[in-house]
Amino acid sequence: MLRFLKPYPNSRPAYTLIQNHLVDCRQISNQTLNEPAQPCVKTSIPGPKTLELLKELNSLQQAGSVQLFADYDKSFGNYFVDADGNEFLDAFTQISSVPVGYNHPHLLKAFEDDHNLKALINRPALGVFPSMDWPEKLKAVLLSVAPKGLSCVSTMMCGSCSNENAYKAAFMRYRTKERGGKLDFTLAEMNSCMLNMPPGAPKMSIMSFEGSFHGRTFGALSTTRSKPIHKLDCPAFDWPVAPFPRYKYPLSEHERENHLEDKRCIEQVEDLIEKQKKAGNPVAGIIVEPIQSEGGDHEASPEFFQKLQNICKAKGVALIIDEVQTGGGPTGKMWCHEHFNLPSPPEIVTFSKKMLTGGFYCNADFKAPHPYRIFNTWMGDPGKLILLERVLEVVKQENLLSLVCATGKVLKEGLHTLEKEFPNIINSVRGRGTFLAFNANSSQIRDKINNNLKSNGVLGGACGETAIRLRPALIFAPKHAEIYLTALRKTLKQL
Amino acid sequence: MLRFLKPYPNSRPAYTLIQNHLVDCRQISNQTLNEPAQPCVKTSIPGPKTLELLKELNSLQQAGSVQLFADYDKSFGNYFVDADGNEFLDAFTQISSVPVGYNHPHLLKAFEDDHNLKALINRPALGVFPSMDWPEKLKAVLLSVAPKGLSCVSTMMCGSCSNENAYKAAFMRYRTKERGGKLDFTLAEMNSCMLNMPPGAPKMSIMSFEGSFHGRTFGALSTTRSKPIHKLDCPAFDWPVAPFPRYKYPLSEHERENHLEDKRCIEQVEDLIEKQKKAGNPVAGIIVEPIQSEGGDHEASPEFFQKLQNICKAKGVALIIDEVQTGGGPTGKMWCHEHFNLPSPPEIVTFSKKMLTGGFYCNADFKAPHPYRIFNTWMGDPGKLILLERVLEVVKQENLLSLVCATGKVLKEGLHTLEKEFPNIINSVRGRGTFLAFNANSSQIRDKINNNLKSNGVLGGACGETAIRLRPALIFAPKHAEIYLTALRKTLKQL
Repeated sequence: MLRFLKPYPNSRPAYTLIQNHLVDCRQISNQTLNEPAQPCVKTSIPGPKTLELLKELNSLQQAGSVQLFADYDKSFGNYFVDADGNEFLDAFTQISSVPVGYNHPHLLKAFEDDHNLKALINRPALGVFPSMDWPEKLKAVLLSVAPKGLSCVSTMMCGSCSNENAYKAAFMRYRTKERGGKLDFTLAEMNSCMLNMPPGAPKMSIMSFEGSFHGRTFGALSTTRSKPIHKLDCPAFDWPVAPFPRYKYPLSEHERENHLEDKRCIEQVEDLIEKQKKAGNPVAGIIVEPIQSEGGDHEASPEFFQKLQNICKAKGVALIIDEVQTGGGPTGKMWCHEHFNLPSPPEIVTFSKKMLTGGFYCNADFKAPHPYRIFNTWMGDPGKLILLERVLEVVKQENLLSLVCATGKVLKEGLHTLEKEFPNIINSVRGRGTFLAFNANSSQIRDKINNNLKSNGVLGGACGETAIRLRPALIFAPKHAEIYLTALRKTLKQL
Repeated sequence: MLRFLKPYPNSRPAYTLIQNHLVDCRQISNQTLNEPAQPCVKTSIPGPKTLELLKELNSLQQAGSVQLFADYDKSFGNYFVDADGNEFLDAFTQISSVPVGYNHPHLLKAFEDDHNLKALINRPALGVFPSMDWPEKLKAVLLSVAPKGLSCVSTMMCGSCSNENAYKAAFMRYRTKERGGKLDFTLAEMNSCMLNMPPGAPKMSIMSFEGSFHGRTFGALSTTRSKPIHKLDCPAFDWPVAPFPRYKYPLSEHERENHLEDKRCIEQVEDLIEKQKKAGNPVAGIIVEPIQSEGGDHEASPEFFQKLQNICKAKGVALIIDEVQTGGGPTGKMWCHEHFNLPSPPEIVTFSKKMLTGGFYCNADFKAPHPYRIFNTWMGDPGKLILLERVLEVVKQENLLSLVCATGKVLKEGLHTLEKEFPNIINSVRGRGTFLAFNANSSQIRDKINNNLKSNGVLGGACGETAIRLRPALIFAPKHAEIYLTALRKTLKQL
């Protein structure tokens, strides 16, 4: 029982009218009761203190990506307070990585427990000396929300190293199969790998999709295909890239074209797998986001993913689903790929961000065949699992996946109304749950909207060339959706 | 002022005899006063509970590298307590990542401060919305111990991603120089990088040394050259590897041969840089550990490093010093490369482990020329900086670098005595501070020593083919050295 929770009105569904929407009372996060009533912007954005701090930080590192400096003592729930005292409704939440808002009391209390505090302070090398409750903790926390059919999990530090290690697992599995399941290596393999040469360091590849983002370390970066600025000047592996569907909106009016688009992309995936094999650079795994995020919030249909899985199964290629941004609830399900009704579980699912710890789930075939192959000094951080445990308790207790669906409905309907009201400025509203996006008619207008939204009290995120993405916390309620939509309407009118 | 500290006897040097060694009283860490008097092993190792837990963990992930399960509630100072209640003197400290021992009171109190707690709970995207005290924090903590001459710092998550980002910084700097300092890109570069092809994703390399270890993500792994098991089945970049000195011991008896060994290695470095350039795969950076650790604790002389730096300067290659394992004090200086009297600062120094946060220092030339190029969602973790701040306070207050030197002296002398006493079993005692190692006469004997040490109450680490490495915390005192040496003598006698 979470002590900070006020008792729910009663045990049966009770509905109330919030901002003109009928909402199940049980779906209001208690956390939001102590928030500001609305955003409050007092200075120009960025404000004078922020500009000073930016100068200071820029002397120590490249700080050109910094938007605002935060006052995390005062930020609360869905509200982000900056160094100049401005209060923003946060619909971006640290690039989608704050699951239950700022300063959630249940999280603030996590380390009052002496055992938890010691788990935080005494960070072990988890692959060598884990704590005696670590296996139980993995089960109680990470496996309690594991994607169906995946019984193994490895913790990591961030999204990039989760993907990198997933690739390693895919390569090892592919080579082990090629060896007929044998677990020993030849002398030639052992010697050549030390020189970065085949057969020990084989020519093999991970396929990814145009517009995808999978991280910035060299393996992950070789699969990232969203924007040149991430990749320029970095050597990359000779790995293949396939097209990802680019749909026309609204979906209901373009079923036939979008279906053909699926077909075009799937055919190229199949072709590329064959070509790579012939070229002696076979595809061991395909990594795909359920919704391409950094690259522009591009969706693909459940049918696309089902067909993709069929091809992977037929060709012996591992399907790696990158749920770093989509995982943890924002689409209304714990894992976005649950929306796809896949015939069988994917081989690997990677996570980070809202899960607070990086890592990947896999089936037992993809467990590393030897020790020290999926390994590093820390292999995650028990302190993050303690916080995640509390996040999941809040999600369950407050029925937040249901709140995401309710809020998402309000948001999406509101965005559809706005795209009809401002057809020359925005279009292509899309997404699942509160994981939503729309396009502006140009990059320039998109940037203007995103900047002006700040002056109107809302933090949003840009992605791709022309998209604005919504990435609120799971406690974002219909009342916040209304504030967001009001600020967006004001912003669009001001253009 | 650290409140938990008992007052030092007086402000002038005061010496006392501990285990037959004259020690400056100010050099005894107060933290060790509440430790067990000595190790206590009650069960066979691994004990019955550990074996049960191992089975459980193995069902969830490859757990073959796990040695013991820990009771972190009971572990204290230099003593590690396992699931079976055995108390070990820890001379390995989580692969060298616990700077001031288990459950240090000053660290346990870090999050009693409400501001610190909120910094821990509200983990930001540091590249976009850092807290308003972040620039000050970077200065007060990380830059307060920066290697001389390096004024910039970027925080990261772990050693691997610190090195990966250092490589990116080196590549960017190399290409920017090639562009004559111009900061814009050609259309060909922007288009080709999206296909992982030159010129945008150029053929360029990072040189590393035989026996080196720099991490396990794909870029880092392409520079790791310690053992096949880390590299097998993973595609790798076509990057060059140079020999690293392999000295004969004792050093004082082999000056001429070791000097020639330096020369041999340096000449090959120079040759390889030229060959790579001619082959169209130029070396943008050389990464080197001040003491090769995972690969077998191989040292090189200050003269080797001075010459290496000269070559790098002459050829326009960035010198990246990987202080992930050596940094933070264990060699008796904050950074091991301070022992080398380099003519000028290295371009980049990477860190992790005892620094609790990953990251790298660099000079202003290596600051990324554009935003979003050295970037990821979290870019470090403020909670780790809060702990590091306290670690550095303890190091200063308790004069721990001086303790490391005093303890290292006792340890090294004791190891020299033992290599004379057991010349057919161990040899080649080496290292700086408490960052010490010795070789066994075979891998088999090495493994036996390391295992039997556990039964005799001491946790040690293996590295390379035949080496045993000592990686105690900075609070390891002469009295612990004596316990270690006694256990080692007992172990060697038992063989």
